[in-house]
Amino acid sequence: MREKHRSGCPVNLTLEMLGDSWSLIVIRDVMFGNRRHYNDLLKLSEEGIASNILADRLNRLMRLGLLTRTADPTHKQKAIYSLTEASIQLVPLMACIIAWGRKHTDAAKLKKTANRTIRGQILDEGGQRMWEPFMAALRVAHLGAPAPRRSIFMERLAALESAAKPGHTIRK
Amino acid sequence: MREKHRSGCPVNLTLEMLGDSWSLIVIRDVMFGNRRHYNDLLKLSEEGIASNILADRLNRLMRLGLLTRTADPTHKQKAIYSLTEASIQLVPLMACIIAWGRKHTDAAKLKKTANRTIRGQILDEGGQRMWEPFMAALRVAHLGAPAPRRSIFMERLAALESAAKPGHTIRK
Repeated sequence: MREKHRSGCPVNLTLEMLGDSWSLIVIRDVMFGNRRHYNDLLKLSEEGIASNILADRLNRLMRLGLLTRTADPTHKQKAIYSLTEASIQLVPLMACIIAWGRKHTDAAKLKKTANRTIRGQILDEGGQRMWEPFMAALRVAHLGAPAPRRSIFMERLAALESAAKPGHTIRK
Repeated sequence: MREKHRSGCPVNLTLEMLGDSWSLIVIRDVMFGNRRHYNDLLKLSEEGIASNILADRLNRLMRLGLLTRTADPTHKQKAIYSLTEASIQLVPLMACIIAWGRKHTDAAKLKKTANRTIRGQILDEGGQRMWEPFMAALRVAHLGAPAPRRSIFMERLAALESAAKPGHTIRK
């Protein structure tokens, strides 16, 4: 972040970081799709992201402090991508984008739930009261924070995952 | 919105509409800066938007149903730009961008209030409870909705505007 900025306005500075067509798509796939490996981010991409764009955006997001990459303890060959505290705090912004997009884009005409992840479904149903529990769950999964004794988010996630049978349209 | 979409995900569709570096900047200037004329949007731009980009984005935002242009009743020569219900509903998303940007971009290092508009200040101070009153005030100013009997937003705006003396750093 030592580039020259167009202005010091927080809207402008946020757009300079995230105002391209792909950065938030990559964060969405890590955050809601729980895709932590390069290959998953590439091959499961609904938007068909190109490998060079994905690699560029991953590097850029790491440089900006919004992702980290570490060795996956379960697959020594693979790197695992994690959200940071700064990108976890994008949850309210993401939720507002989803809510606005459902109402004011062609998403309203398309199948509303076709592409929805379980995490997205929980956020949709729960509204603002689910923002903090979702962020807390992301801190456990991505930052190694200790799991809280109870989590309405994790309970709902477990219930929906056990209900999701093969052939069910909701993806993990 | 008859273009081919990358996917039906509401995050993706919102980014296809607003995920460039300028569209939200233009909406910000209409929404928070109360700039309704082309010349104000061009000449007061903190980011120094170029005239061809401004003209392109205004047309694009009108095509997308996020702005309308009408003759200004007070200046027959000038057109006046107005928000629509869809862009007024971007208030929560804008507020989340501002809050995240203040915390996680260089805005934190730059002067926090240097560029702030009175409307931005009210939203900052009031938090989420000010979203609806701000949207209601925008509906009065941009959609010709009847003014509510009382508005905590309009009362705060009047108080700050009367306190803003010449030389004061807060702009209208």
